[in-house]
Amino acid sequence: MVKVLNSSQELIQVRNGEQKAIGFVPTMGNLHAGHISLLEEALKHNDVVYFSIFVNPKQFGPNEDFNKYPRTLQVDINLIEQCLNSYTNKKVIIFAPIDAKEIFPTNTNQLVSVAGLSTMLEGALRPGHFDGVATVVLRLFELVRPQTAYFGLKDYQQFLVIQQMVVDLKLPIKIIGMPIIRESNGLALSSRNQYLSAEEREVSLILSRTLSKIGQIIDHKKSNVEKAQSEITHVLKDSRWNYLEIRDAGTLSSDLTHSTKITLLAVFQLGTTRLLDNMQLEIQ
Amino acid sequence: MVKVLNSSQELIQVRNGEQKAIGFVPTMGNLHAGHISLLEEALKHNDVVYFSIFVNPKQFGPNEDFNKYPRTLQVDINLIEQCLNSYTNKKVIIFAPIDAKEIFPTNTNQLVSVAGLSTMLEGALRPGHFDGVATVVLRLFELVRPQTAYFGLKDYQQFLVIQQMVVDLKLPIKIIGMPIIRESNGLALSSRNQYLSAEEREVSLILSRTLSKIGQIIDHKKSNVEKAQSEITHVLKDSRWNYLEIRDAGTLSSDLTHSTKITLLAVFQLGTTRLLDNMQLEIQ
Repeated sequence: MVKVLNSSQELIQVRNGEQKAIGFVPTMGNLHAGHISLLEEALKHNDVVYFSIFVNPKQFGPNEDFNKYPRTLQVDINLIEQCLNSYTNKKVIIFAPIDAKEIFPTNTNQLVSVAGLSTMLEGALRPGHFDGVATVVLRLFELVRPQTAYFGLKDYQQFLVIQQMVVDLKLPIKIIGMPIIRESNGLALSSRNQYLSAEEREVSLILSRTLSKIGQIIDHKKSNVEKAQSEITHVLKDSRWNYLEIRDAGTLSSDLTHSTKITLLAVFQLGTTRLLDNMQLEIQ
Repeated sequence: MVKVLNSSQELIQVRNGEQKAIGFVPTMGNLHAGHISLLEEALKHNDVVYFSIFVNPKQFGPNEDFNKYPRTLQVDINLIEQCLNSYTNKKVIIFAPIDAKEIFPTNTNQLVSVAGLSTMLEGALRPGHFDGVATVVLRLFELVRPQTAYFGLKDYQQFLVIQQMVVDLKLPIKIIGMPIIRESNGLALSSRNQYLSAEEREVSLILSRTLSKIGQIIDHKKSNVEKAQSEITHVLKDSRWNYLEIRDAGTLSSDLTHSTKITLLAVFQLGTTRLLDNMQLEIQ
């Protein structure tokens, strides 16, 4: 078959059709239903899904839980296989480098840094964290070359950092953010939840409940934000909050003058365990 | 199917397998058996062949034959279709932009320049020519994203320039050089041969015959190069030669001290028509 094309636009379209749709889900393993929801979305929309399991040393601070972070590779593989049973004709490639040298061959300190977004909020409390995230994700993107990559919105600031990196570096990759998966009591799923004692687990519900409450106060109206702010001032008297903020959902700016979509971002800390949660709201 | 990989090397291999083998033959059209030999080689080794037909303004000097250059798109398409008849299940995408803006949207003067190789020999006589070639080829590579690209060795210096560009820019593309196709009388096929009168056509055989003769004098022995040089000095008394040189086949350096492969490069001019030819020889 011979096909004649005269425009670059057509050419790019035809060329893109020559390859399988490759989806990518980068994770640090220890999978829960949140990760599996990313995998399912990727399987629905791609021929092949690359799924990486790599506890990235570059995104942990010196006093953080890199060594303690749960590594459960065989269980993770079983979960993925189970999920794949519902998707015949699809293929999952699990990339689980044992040696960090597979990702960072020369252990260079050169980092990708997304200005602005990386240094506020979570980035202010964990200096270098988002540089580590952006660096490993870029490296994985280079290896996997996906058309589409899937991230959980549980790490909302991370999602924005990745999205900005893709724009800044003009990467030909579509970034999809998938909704937070929660336990029935409202607790957002996280590998770090298993650090919690039974008692802490109970207390942790303050986090999602507070977000819901702030969301209800705002009730999609910009005029209610002030009321929400005073509620937040009240809430933050409890020192277990690392932060609880209302920000623009796109820029994370605290100036909401022109915002039509906002995000509540919070970290609630129990012992050494920092629990993240967030919620997006359209306002007018 | 789930596949678990632990090394980046494996990952890259598997990932490369997810896409069809894309071969690319960039041409300026007005096809002859030389071009078709590139197409055949590409069809043998790829699932899909992209074949571009574009008379690139950037590689013509102000007093050169850009306007006169033969454009025979419909005949070219027929030739390609004919060739494809012998390759069932293969596909050819002909990219024949009518408007140069499809390739150079902003008509920027920014050029790719391959230092050294681009300014000697053909590049010295046609200033900017190889910058124009490298620029259009890079642009086409970006659009087509082939794994393999095919070039005729008739333009030997061009082949080296492209090869060097691919190394310099670390492009993930394999460059294949295919042997010169000749008429039975020895004349190397070229679209520009049709500019020749019947009489010039006869005279043009001096070019290939001289190269053969020089090659025979060298006879694969470095010690014979000096003898070949004096023959060349004799030959060059005929002012119709633009140049006739013995160079290292990899670097085009005239210092052959460490050469194990050399190239004879020549341009013989008849009227305004410059005829290129070359020959590679291993020596010891």
